[in-house]
Formats: sequence, C-alpha cells, structure tokens
Amino acid sequence: MEEKNMNELLKKAEVLIEALPYIQRFNRKIIVVKYGGSAMVDEELKQHVIQDVTLLKLVGFKPIIVHGGGKEISRWVEKAGMEPEFVNGLRKTDEATMEIAEMVLNKVNKSLVKLVQELGVNAVGISGKDGGMLKVEKKYSNGQDIGYVGEITQVNPKILYDLLEKDFLPIVCPIGMDENYDSYNINADDAACAIARAVHAEKLAFLTDIEGVYKDPKDPSTLISELPISEAKKLIEDGYIGGGMLPKLNNCIDAIENGVSRVHILDGRIAHCLLLEIFTNKGIGTAILGDKETKYYHE
Amino acid sequence: MEEKNMNELLKKAEVLIEALPYIQRFNRKIIVVKYGGSAMVDEELKQHVIQDVTLLKLVGFKPIIVHGGGKEISRWVEKAGMEPEFVNGLRKTDEATMEIAEMVLNKVNKSLVKLVQELGVNAVGISGKDGGMLKVEKKYSNGQDIGYVGEITQVNPKILYDLLEKDFLPIVCPIGMDENYDSYNINADDAACAIARAVHAEKLAFLTDIEGVYKDPKDPSTLISELPISEAKKLIEDGYIGGGMLPKLNNCIDAIENGVSRVHILDGRIAHCLLLEIFTNKGIGTAILGDKETKYYHE
Amino acid sequence: MEEKNMNELLKKAEVLIEALPYIQRFNRKIIVVKYGGSAMVDEELKQHVIQDVTLLKLVGFKPIIVHGGGKEISRWVEKAGMEPEFVNGLRKTDEATMEIAEMVLNKVNKSLVKLVQELGVNAVGISGKDGGMLKVEKKYSNGQDIGYVGEITQVNPKILYDLLEKDFLPIVCPIGMDENYDSYNINADDAACAIARAVHAEKLAFLTDIEGVYKDPKDPSTLISELPISEAKKLIEDGYIGGGMLPKLNNCIDAIENGVSRVHILDGRIAHCLLLEIFTNKGIGTAILGDKETKYYHE
Amino acid sequence: MEEKNMNELLKKAEVLIEALPYIQRFNRKIIVVKYGGSAMVDEELKQHVIQDVTLLKLVGFKPIIVHGGGKEISRWVEKAGMEPEFVNGLRKTDEATMEIAEMVLNKVNKSLVKLVQELGVNAVGISGKDGGMLKVEKKYSNGQDIGYVGEITQVNPKILYDLLEKDFLPIVCPIGMDENYDSYNINADDAACAIARAVHAEKLAFLTDIEGVYKDPKDPSTLISELPISEAKKLIEDGYIGGGMLPKLNNCIDAIENGVSRVHILDGRIAHCLLLEIFTNKGIGTAILGDKETKYYHE
Amino acid sequence: MEEKNMNELLKKAEVLIEALPYIQRFNRKIIVVKYGGSAMVDEELKQHVIQDVTLLKLVGFKPIIVHGGGKEISRWVEKAGMEPEFVNGLRKTDEATMEIAEMVLNKVNKSLVKLVQELGVNAVGISGKDGGMLKVEKKYSNGQDIGYVGEITQVNPKILYDLLEKDFLPIVCPIGMDENYDSYNINADDAACAIARAVHAEKLAFLTDIEGVYKDPKDPSTLISELPISEAKKLIEDGYIGGGMLPKLNNCIDAIENGVSRVHILDGRIAHCLLLEIFTNKGIGTAILGDKETKYYHE
Amino acid sequence: MEEKNMNELLKKAEVLIEALPYIQRFNRKIIVVKYGGSAMVDEELKQHVIQDVTLLKLVGFKPIIVHGGGKEISRWVEKAGMEPEFVNGLRKTDEATMEIAEMVLNKVNKSLVKLVQELGVNAVGISGKDGGMLKVEKKYSNGQDIGYVGEITQVNPKILYDLLEKDFLPIVCPIGMDENYDSYNINADDAACAIARAVHAEKLAFLTDIEGVYKDPKDPSTLISELPISEAKKLIEDGYIGGGMLPKLNNCIDAIENGVSRVHILDGRIAHCLLLEIFTNKGIGTAILGDKETKYYHE
Repeated sequence: MEEKNMNELLKKAEVLIEALPYIQRFNRKIIVVKYGGSAMVDEELKQHVIQDVTLLKLVGFKPIIVHGGGKEISRWVEKAGMEPEFVNGLRKTDEATMEIAEMVLNKVNKSLVKLVQELGVNAVGISGKDGGMLKVEKKYSNGQDIGYVGEITQVNPKILYDLLEKDFLPIVCPIGMDENYDSYNINADDAACAIARAVHAEKLAFLTDIEGVYKDPKDPSTLISELPISEAKKLIEDGYIGGGMLPKLNNCIDAIENGVSRVHILDGRIAHCLLLEIFTNKGIGTAILGDKETKYYHE
Repeated sequence: MEEKNMNELLKKAEVLIEALPYIQRFNRKIIVVKYGGSAMVDEELKQHVIQDVTLLKLVGFKPIIVHGGGKEISRWVEKAGMEPEFVNGLRKTDEATMEIAEMVLNKVNKSLVKLVQELGVNAVGISGKDGGMLKVEKKYSNGQDIGYVGEITQVNPKILYDLLEKDFLPIVCPIGMDENYDSYNINADDAACAIARAVHAEKLAFLTDIEGVYKDPKDPSTLISELPISEAKKLIEDGYIGGGMLPKLNNCIDAIENGVSRVHILDGRIAHCLLLEIFTNKGIGTAILGDKETKYYHE
Repeated sequence: MEEKNMNELLKKAEVLIEALPYIQRFNRKIIVVKYGGSAMVDEELKQHVIQDVTLLKLVGFKPIIVHGGGKEISRWVEKAGMEPEFVNGLRKTDEATMEIAEMVLNKVNKSLVKLVQELGVNAVGISGKDGGMLKVEKKYSNGQDIGYVGEITQVNPKILYDLLEKDFLPIVCPIGMDENYDSYNINADDAACAIARAVHAEKLAFLTDIEGVYKDPKDPSTLISELPISEAKKLIEDGYIGGGMLPKLNNCIDAIENGVSRVHILDGRIAHCLLLEIFTNKGIGTAILGDKETKYYHE
Repeated sequence: MEEKNMNELLKKAEVLIEALPYIQRFNRKIIVVKYGGSAMVDEELKQHVIQDVTLLKLVGFKPIIVHGGGKEISRWVEKAGMEPEFVNGLRKTDEATMEIAEMVLNKVNKSLVKLVQELGVNAVGISGKDGGMLKVEKKYSNGQDIGYVGEITQVNPKILYDLLEKDFLPIVCPIGMDENYDSYNINADDAACAIARAVHAEKLAFLTDIEGVYKDPKDPSTLISELPISEAKKLIEDGYIGGGMLPKLNNCIDAIENGVSRVHILDGRIAHCLLLEIFTNKGIGTAILGDKETKYYHE
Repeated sequence: MEEKNMNELLKKAEVLIEALPYIQRFNRKIIVVKYGGSAMVDEELKQHVIQDVTLLKLVGFKPIIVHGGGKEISRWVEKAGMEPEFVNGLRKTDEATMEIAEMVLNKVNKSLVKLVQELGVNAVGISGKDGGMLKVEKKYSNGQDIGYVGEITQVNPKILYDLLEKDFLPIVCPIGMDENYDSYNINADDAACAIARAVHAEKLAFLTDIEGVYKDPKDPSTLISELPISEAKKLIEDGYIGGGMLPKLNNCIDAIENGVSRVHILDGRIAHCLLLEIFTNKGIGTAILGDKETKYYHE
Repeated sequence: MEEKNMNELLKKAEVLIEALPYIQRFNRKIIVVKYGGSAMVDEELKQHVIQDVTLLKLVGFKPIIVHGGGKEISRWVEKAGMEPEFVNGLRKTDEATMEIAEMVLNKVNKSLVKLVQELGVNAVGISGKDGGMLKVEKKYSNGQDIGYVGEITQVNPKILYDLLEKDFLPIVCPIGMDENYDSYNINADDAACAIARAVHAEKLAFLTDIEGVYKDPKDPSTLISELPISEAKKLIEDGYIGGGMLPKLNNCIDAIENGVSRVHILDGRIAHCLLLEIFTNKGIGTAILGDKETKYYHE
C-alpha cells in the first residue's frame, strides 16, 4: 500500500479510537436532542443531524429527538387563508390554528421518521398525546388568553421507556393534552427540557442558530465553552443574556438542577455538530453544567 | 329493594354473564378493527366505537384500530385550493395531495388517540412509516399512473407486537413507504387486511355503512349472517356482489385464506355493533368464515 | 332488524359499557371473596357466585375464594355418631371432630374447584396447610380450651402469589397448623380477613345472609350503604351492632386499617350480588371504607 | 480426635461422596413416587419415606408423590354404616361411596402435606380435579358398571409444572373428572404411571409390600434386580407373573415404552428404600428398563 | 437380603438423612473455601476437597474456591535461578518474581478447574484481574517496600455473581491490579476474606494445617469448637494467639463483623473435613461466630 | 472557529459517519479474532489491537479473542533448561513442556485481560479447560507421537455464550483436555477456527505477519482482496499456496463451509488493521467468502 494512503487510513483509525472513551462513557445513556432552527430547513444539515443521531443510537446511546415546526406552521396557516398572529413571541392559537399546527407538526414528525428509517434504524413518531405523555395547562401571556398554548404540568415517560427498551428511536412533536383532553401547542425547547428531566437524561442538546452563549454577543471572541449554572445565573442577573437565549438558558439551568448531567447549546449550522461535540476531544458550543463538576470531560 | 329494581339488576347481571364465554374464548387474541364510514363521522357513533374497542382491550383482547380519512382529505384538498380527482374510485394523488393526505390522516389518527386516552387506556397513533411497518409499491389503475397510491408488499409487524406487549392500543393510519422511502396513501381496507394477516389476528372486523352481505341487495330479507368462503366465491362468480362490496369481500376471503379465523362485516351505523357481535348470543352483520367451520360459535 | 330487538340489544351494550370503568379500576387487583351462608346451600345461587367470580377472573381481576363449611360439618359429625357441641358460638373441636371437619372442608373445597373448572377456568383447591400458608395458635373461648380451634398468627402468602401468577383461581378452606404442625379449624371470616391483609387485597367481600349493616336492624329502611370505619366504630360503641355482625364488622375494620381498600358486606341471597356490586352504577349491601375516602366510586 | 470417631466420620463422608454421581445424574429430573402399602400405615416407615422424598427435593430432584388410601376408605365407608363392595378387585363406587372416598383421599393428602412441611419443604396437596389435571372416563369391570371408577384418558400437566417451577413438592391423590365434571376414583398405580408419562419423568418408583419381581415367587433367591421390558413381557406371557403384580408390571412396561427412563419396584417395608436405591452403589428391588440400556448405572 | 447388609444400608441412609437439615439450611447460600496447606499437596486430600466442594455445589450451595500456591511458587522461582526472599513472612516480590508467581498461580488454578470438570461440574478459573475483580494497593512491611505485594482496597463481585448465576463453580487465584493496572500478589487468606465479605457469603471456611484454635496450643485438649468474636478478641488481647493464626483469626473477626455468618477453621489434613463440618451433627475444627448467636446449629 | 479547524473537524465527522453502515450491519454479531504474530510482540501494535477490539465491543459487536504464545513458550522452555523441539512445525510437547506451555499461555492470557480492563471494558481470560470448552484428542505428526499436542474434537460454547451475555470480552488461550482430562496444547489458528464455527461467528479475522493471500507471493501486486472459496481451493490445488498459509487457508475454507460468513486475513503489522477493515470503505488484506456472495460489502 502506498504511504499516502496508509497515512490517511491511520488518521481514520485515530478518529475512531478518539471516540472510544466517549462511546464508553455514554453507553446506554439517554440523550435528548432538541432539533430546530436552520438544521431543520437546510436539506444537507438535516441529513447530517439524522446521521449523527442514528450513529449515537447505533453505538449504544439512547437518543430521543424533540422537534418543533415553527415556520412550516405559519406557511400552512397562510395557505388556509388565515393570518399568523403572535403575542410576546407566542403564537396565538385558536382552534383552527391548533388544528393546522397539529397537522403540520405530525407531518414534520413523520418526515423525520422517514429519514431515520432510511438509514436502517427503527424510529417511531409520537406526539405528547400518545400514551398520555404530556399533560398541560393553558399558558397565559402576561395574563392574556392566547388560546391553545400549553405549559407542561406532568410528563408520563412510560411510552418513551417502552420504545427505548424495544430499541426504537422516539421522535416527539410537542403537543399535549389538558385535563379535558383538548390539544395544546407546546414550545419545543420547554418540551425537550421537561422530557430530559422526566427520563433522567444524561445529556440534553439544543441545536440552535447561534454559536453558543457569549459574554458579549457582539464580540465573537467571548464565546463561553463551559458555563457552570451559578455563573449562568449571574450572567442573567447582570443582564448579559437577552432575546431568545434567555428562556433557553433558563431551561438549561432548570434541566441541570433536575438531574440532567450536562446541557449543550450547539450551533446547528455546523455540519455534524452533535457528533463533534460528543466524539472528539474538542467540544464545540457552550456546555452548561453543575457547579460541582470542575473538570470538563474533554480533557 | 323493590322488586322492579331487583329484576332490572338481575337482567344486567345476565348480560354480563352472557359475555363470559366470549371473553374466555378471545382472551389475549388479536382483533383488527377497520374503522371507517358513518361511524367515523357521527360523534355519538364514534364515541360508541371507541368505548367498544376500549372494553375489548380491558377484558383481555388485543385490539388494533386501522382507520381511513376519506372525506376529510377531500375537504382539506379543497381548502388548499386544489381539486380532488378520482380514477376508478382511487384518489389521484400527486405530491401536493399526498402531503395533505398525510397531514389529515395523522390528524385523524391523533384524534382517535385522544378519545381512547380519555377513557383511561393507553393508545399510540402510528402510520405504516413508523418502524418501517408497511412497505409498498406504486399501484396502477388499469395501467394508469395515479401517483402516490400504494399497494402493500410487506408488513413488518414488530412495532405492533411491541406496542401490544407494552399494553398499548395501536391506532394505525394507512400510509406506507416504497423502496425509495417515498410516502404512499393506502386503501384502509387493504391495510387492515394485510395487518390482520401479518399479526395472525383471530378476528378482522370491518365497520361499514351497510347491514352486511345480501344475496339480493335489493331485498333486506336476504341478509346472509354466515358465509363460508366457498359460498362467498360462488356469489362473486355468479355476479351477485358488486360495488364497494366486491373488493371488501375479496379482502375477507384473502384474510380467511391466510390464517385469520373470522372476518365480520358489521353495520357501523348500529350503536355498539362491535360489542354486540362479540359479546352476545346473537351475532349481527355477516360473518365470513372458513369452509371447515361448520358450527357458528354463537349457538 | 326490528326496532324492539334493536332496543334490547342496545340495552345489553349499555350494561357492558357501564362495566367499563370498574373493569379498568380493578384490573389486576386482588379481590378476596368470603363465600358462605345461603349462597353455599342453594344450588342456583352457588352457580351464580361461581359465575361471578369466574367473570371477575376473566376480565382481569385476581379473585381468591375463602369458604367455610359449617352445616355440612355438623351433618357428618352426626353421621359418625357424634354430637356437635358449641361453646360461645365456637365449635368444640376434639381430635375426632377435627378429622371430620378437615375431610368435609376439603370435600367442599374440591366441589368448588369442580364448579370453576366446569366454566373453563383453572382453579386449585388448597387449605392453609399447603405451602405452610396459615400458622395458628390455639384459641380459647373465655379461657376455656375448646380443642382444635385456631387463631391465625401468621400468613405466608407465597402459595397464593404463585398460583395467581400462574393464572389459577385459588380456593382456600380455613385450616391451619400450629408450631407442632397439628391441624386447627379456623373461622372462615377470620381467614378471609387475614388473607386479604396478607396479599394487600383491593377488596374483601363477605357473602352473608343479611342485606347489609342497619342502623336499626328492625327497620329495613336504615340500611347503611357506605360506612367509614370511624362511624362503624361508633355504631359498635353505641351498641347498635350485635350478634354475628359484631365480629364481622370488627374484621372489616381490621382489614381497612391494614391496607385493604374497601370491604363489602353483600347479601348472598341476591343472585349475582357480587357482579352487581362491582360492575353497576348502583352498589348493593354495605361498603366499609377508610375515613379519608369521601366520595364513593359508584357516582 | 480419637481414631474410632475419626473412622466413623470418614465412613459418613464416604456415604455422602458415594451419592455424588447420582445427585449429579438426576439433577432437576422429575421422579414420580407411587406411595402406598405398609409404608403408608407404619408411622416410622411413613416418616422415612417423607424424609427420603424431601431429601431428593433438597438435593435438586423434582419429586411428585402420588398416593392411594385404600384401607382408610373402607374404614370410613363402614363408619358411615355402609358395606364396602369389590368387583374383580375394584371397589364398587356408588355416589355415597365416592363422596367418602374423596373425603378420605383428601384427608390423607393433606396429612402428607403436613409431614413434608414439618421438614421445612413446601408441599401442595392436590387431586386430579385441580387445574383439570386428570380427565377420565368410566371404567367397566368385564362390562359391569361399577360406578365412579375412572380410567384416565388425558393428563394436563400444567399444574404440576407450575408447582415444580415454584419449588413446591406436589402431592397428588388419584381423583379425576369425566366430561360432565363428575368425580371418579382412580387406581393410584395407574395415576402414577399416567402422570410419569405426562411429565416425562426420569424415574417412576412404586413403593410396594414385596421385595420386587421374582422369577419364582415361592423362591426368594429368584428376585430379579434388573428387568428389560422384553424379558418382562416374556415373564408375563409365560405365566410367571400373577396377582397384583400383573397390572403393576404392565404399568411399568407402559411407562418405559412412553418415555420414562426407569421404573423401580421397591420394598416399602425397608426403611429408606427410596434413598438407598437412588444414592448407593447397590440398587434394591427390581428395576424395569428399556431393552437398549445394557449397563445398569449402579456399576 | 442378609441382616448384616441391611444394617449397613440403613446406616448409609441415616447418614444421608442426617445431612438433610444442613442441605436445607444452606440451600443457594454462598460458601467461600480458602484452599491451601497440606490439602493442596497430598493428592488424595486434594481429591477429597474437590469432591466435597463439588458435592456442595450439586446439593444446592454456591461454593467459591480461593487458593494460594506458596510452595510451588518458590519451586519455580528457584528453577528460574532466583532466590526466594521473605520479609516478615511476606514474599519479596520483584517484577521477575511476580511474573513467575502469576504463571504458577494460574497453572495451579487451571489444575483445580481440571479436577472439578473431571467430576462433571463446570468450573471457571479466574484471577482477580478478570473483570477487574480485585483492586489493590501496594502493601508495605513495616514501611519497607517489598515489591508487588498487594492489599485489597476494593472487590467488584460482578464476575462472581455472573458465574454463579450461570451455574459455574468459580476458582480464584489471588492476584489483583493497582490503579496503574500493574499485577500484585495477594495473601490468599486475605483474598478469601475480602471476597466472602463482598459476596455476603453465608460461610467462609479455611482449610489449614492445624486442628483449630486452641486456648493453649501446647494442650490438644483445649481445642475450642465455638468461638464468639468477643472471646476471640479477648484471646488475642491476652496473647494466647500467635504465629500464622493471628492474621487468620483477625481475618475471621473481620469477616464476621462484615456480614459473613460463620467462619470455620478446619483441619485440611482430615479427609472430607469440609463435608463433615457441614453435613454431620458433630462439627469439627473451630467455628468463629457472632456474639449474638447463642446456639450452635449442630445441636 | 477558524476555517482550517472547521475542515479538520468535518473530516473527523465524516470518518465516523463512514463507519455507520458497518456498525449497523454487525450489531450484536460475534467476531472471533485470532491474535498472534508481530502484533503480539510490538508494544504499540499490541495497544492498537486491543483498542480496536475494545472499540468493536463498545459499538455493539461481540468480539472473542483467541491467542497463541509461541515465542514466549520457547523462551521459558529454555529458561527452565530444556530444549524446544519441533516435528514438522509442531512443538514436541512432553509433560514438562506442557506444564510450561500452560503457564506461559495463561500468563499471556491474563496480560491481555489487563490491557482490555485498562480501557474500561470487562474481560475474562479463560482456557479451553474452563467449563470444559475444548475437548481434544492426541494429534500425531505423520503417525509420530509428539506428546501433548491436541486436535479439537468438540467445542462446548456454553461458557462463551454466558460470558458474552454478561457483557464480558472473552479472551481464550488454546489449551484443551482429552477424555482423561489431560491437558493439551492446541494450534491457535485451529482453536480460533473451531470456536468461530461453534458460536456461529459472523466474522473470523486472522492477524498475521503478511499482507494477505497473493496469487504470486513474490509479486506484491498480486494480492487478492477477495477470494471465494472455490477459487481458494483452486489456488491450493494448483500449488500456489504454501508454507504457513496452507493450513491457515484450509482453516478459512473450513470456517466458511461451516457457517462463518466471512474470514479475513489481515496484516497485523498495520496499525488498527482490524478497525480499518471493518469500519472503512476500503477493506484491507484478503477476505475469504462463500461463492454465492457476489458483491463485496465495502462498495
């Protein structure tokens, strides 16, 4: 064999060997992936995310995908001749809008099932209605009734454990039912966080459209790669965190405080960001972790 | 206690006792229910069907619901500004129509999940894409390409067995994937029949909008209550059977010939027709059965 | 179908549907039935009780029958040329009497096995000696030695759990052994109560020859349908309860205080009283329950 | 330690070591013991038999005891003022006699349960009615109806397998039911043989009141220690075998021909005959075996 | 049968029956046997020990053998041209010596496997390196570095539980690894004690070259047959115990204080000492037990 | 992130994704690795092989290592003052040599256990004596008795299945016992082949000191990457194969003909050859396969 080829092969082997301790560490651990943003629009990125999650499944992890469907819902609301309406960033969801939202979310859900099946792994697409998984109550926006927007009050993880035990990859769309069994739309970040807590996930990873958490969002050099929750709280207190990052970071803190070992905010626009974070020596994005964990496992 | 009340109570007890041998006979047996027609439109009938299936589940049967969504699909196709089109009774299904069909079928699917959950039983709504359950190929109508209309070539029942084992009631909408993982619409009767065969169902019940099979459809007194498949074939040969009943009866014959013990054509417009057929001394509708079974179990 | 028949069928269906929530509530729960009194003498009532218990088994309950054999024992004692003798309502049981009592109780036991097997359900007839289930010590009647009359000191439920797991219906006759492995006769009410406690039964039902507990036994209109144990204790304190009801009620209180959810005193002379109590909206007899349970489940 | 004691201890150890290969050979194998004759009357012999069977259980065998109750039945028939009557050696069994027989057999059954429990092993006493184990039809004696005397037509071994799995020692009294669920008395030898066949027993041992099979019953020196079934058949053909031994030997042949590996006719009057046969180098009594087995395992 | 033979047989049976309560008491209990001393050198004694342990296995115990290899190691060290060296009774173990020690111990280990397999029981020979069972740190002798001599810091019993569950007899040689995964020689007494603690053994038996613990080692009549640990401690305090017995007795005390029920110091020079201790009415050697156990089970 | 780093990361991800289909294909399949040659001498290569096998284990394969110890045995034979002697390439193995061989092989065995444990995976080192796994008979070299050299006559795979089920990595050294339980040395290639057959391995990989099979060993360009067994037989027939490759190739053919799907002859001198063969698009070495398999899975 030529030297050049040989060297290339050796590099390949080294990458695989580099992954060894991470595979070992997370074997049979549950990882919840919140899938959204650009990574859900760009066809190539989509393919990469699904490959990553499928690989995690195959090497012994137990991934669960939780996804949203934001822009697609608006598109169909308009198609049906209605006007999407938002109150403080939350979609005002009357009965007709909820009907469309449920249709669209389930469509997106099954399209992800398709992508995973295509790679030879068994997936099942469910919503929070199946097996009564997500119980909600109506969420008010500053006291205003905005319709079928739900806040999770309880997670029944039986269906997730059953599907994982039977070796399926569960793909969840964030719809739940209230005590009258009416359907509600749920924020996908919230759903991912609540599910991660309920199944005692080892990891919760958010695929987002930003590189991570910055000390100063205007200065890319201030990207924080590791953020203990006490520091995260301080950043919030001190007003460094704003916009869509604020609720997300609060979700991260909540997850860590409820037993999830580590939460990652990853840049979904980077190909295979999930794989790289988990299987290489150099983590990417921002990892939120408990205060007592003093040493990052990538060293 | 007053005599009148006492008598009434006694009658109640007798109804329950009457059900005893049937509960015993079908304990832990799989029954596939094709749910469609009026029973899917009328809210009260809907409620009755769901109560019936839930009761079957609770007393030890293992029911699987397979449903269609015909009229609702047309409604949404029109809503999206398109024109429903049929070729020889089959919906011409271009990509846009298929997208809507999948959305609608999944919506109907999850609405049935809701009704079962409301009665306190755990249901999971899946399509034939989940777990790669239904493999299809394109179906041609007299050689004409009518788009994403699929014919089932293979059923992988793993997901159904897994859900039944974990005590869920599976609710299936008839969508499958071909070898390129494209989605196809499937006739719900065909899907119910293929699934019943694949899981070796004890019973397959079609909820329809007719009373059963007639020797002479114009003469209600010619309703056949028991039909061995050899006679069914003869009726078809002799031209007695036409319209929508022809493919349905062929499906019945196919099911019986492939290991399903008994197929029922029930009048879904009768409240609790399913329960009455199974739990009382007097069967209703038409039962298609093997030729060797000479005695009907209701006597 | 004629309207009249149709209506009758519909009524049947409604009875079955009425049972649905109760089947669900008690699914896989253990129910101990103390079987005695007239319901054990009258052949038709006997048949009804066995049908009821068998149905409970088939729809998912786990019933255990505990029975006595009082009058039959006396008949055989006399047949053997001896004189039945009672001290304060307890049978004086010398060795010869005990031998006969054991023979008769086991005969009755196996005759119940026969009735259940006849309905197609697997039963096993055991006494408290099998698997060392019932440990007793000698019971004195006001200090007087009355022979082989035992008081239960310990229940080893292994054999009951094993038989239930293997899907048998256990039928128990109340004989136990003391630490010398001598056999003792046990009051059947006491045995039923001790067993219900040991297996953490959901329900304990006494089939008796009265309608239930009365505030004033002379006034049938004072039948109490629901009796929290604090009130039961007060009734006893205030001297309203006497005769055979007193120890029975004490047993009921004991059972509730030791984890049984609900105890029923049913009129065994009413056909299918067990079924009617459990499966219809209108309970019959008297239900003894914990004080904290404020709402009766039949509403 | 003194030499004498030491030698005695060493002898003890050698006896235990001698048992080693037999324990190993029969580990987890089923052995059916037909218990009857003197060993059931003499209290000391009784104790020995129960010790033996209990030891077999403890070292890993799966013993099943099948017992009769002959003389005791006659005693109670007389006690009840009736006259025992025999036709060709079979008890004429009218309904009243059958009732007594069932009472007595169950009494004996539970007295054996007591003896085993006393040694700390869990036993369950059942009859062939429990779990529908023994199905019979009426047996005629040369065409004469002799009442409730049954011939086994079918054995349902489920209850035996379940009890063995749950680590109980099953003790069986030979009563069965016909297709009308009427009770019948069964010859205990026949019952033991039918059960041994049904559970594919490794061994079937008859405890009898003779030393074994003789070539010439008048000459004790002609005791046969090993008897291949072809030779057994020849002995019968040649008229050497008579009396009670004839049906017993036929039962042995039947058992061997239906999968039981070895049948032993043991002298129940010898203390611990069962243990000695199984655990020492020198078998006792007569072993009936297949023709192909040429080497006896005691050498 | 002749009277003399008969009597001999009866005695055999009595030995077996004598074992019955002990078999019962220790059924499925773990017993750790430290195998060493003369019993490992003399071929006949070796055979006896293996027979004993195998018999224990066959009658339902779960034995684990822990063995040393002392003299054999020295023999091979010399063979390799090196000089065995001891510091305070501990072998000075440089790298070369450790290599030989590991070779010899594994050879001895597999030779024991052979002896057990020969008796038809499945054995697996492992060291403390397999499955990471024994974690050690370097042991110093009065502060002096004596090389690869290890002190156990942690026992991971998974491999032992797994092998026992799969019905193997584990045979362990005392080698462990430190945190750098270097191999260390461990004192076999210490290893047996640590393992007995880790698997919550019912018994720990040391096969030694002395009769047991003496009050006065010079006076054979002062052999102690039962020694509660408080008395053992007092004996040590008072200086009665010396030589190799001191660490052994400390090990015994440690085991009892950590959940092992009883520790036996047996004279391995007595044939079948293990069997005799466990299966006969007269224990041999010295039993160390908790202070609260007031009655010795051999009475 | 800098572009250069980004590209490097992306390449890493691609390597992992490239492995995805192979991980999937061999999930839970058994792979037997014959470990020998240079890869067992060079410390770095050793490390690589163990990393590779450990990674295979972690991503879901079930690897079994079979190793030899050739040169190390000779070294110790000499050390003990003896002269290694070979007859037709087979080591003449008298009793003393066998003793040393067993010591050395077990030492090597445990040193591999250490390397695997170091990487955090549980390994168990066994020989063919454990659990009676390898039964052998004496092997003669052209009729000449060469001592304790064995030929495998039977493999009892129970111990391997048990260890795999309990998630251990079995490491096997090639020693077996004959019917007298004497130990024999076995050729490691033969052992690996026999084991692969017995456990129905998916793959058998030989780590050797050559690049693979050549059409013309003198011309490196004639390396055969895929060799159907019919062609392999032809190569042998035509005399192209000689030396140590001949028995190896015969082993390969034998394995394929007995159910192993694919056998690989890999160059153990290439770092991570095992990983590269299995996880990359470009196989290395020579793959021997069945004639019917027409398409190589690396395309």
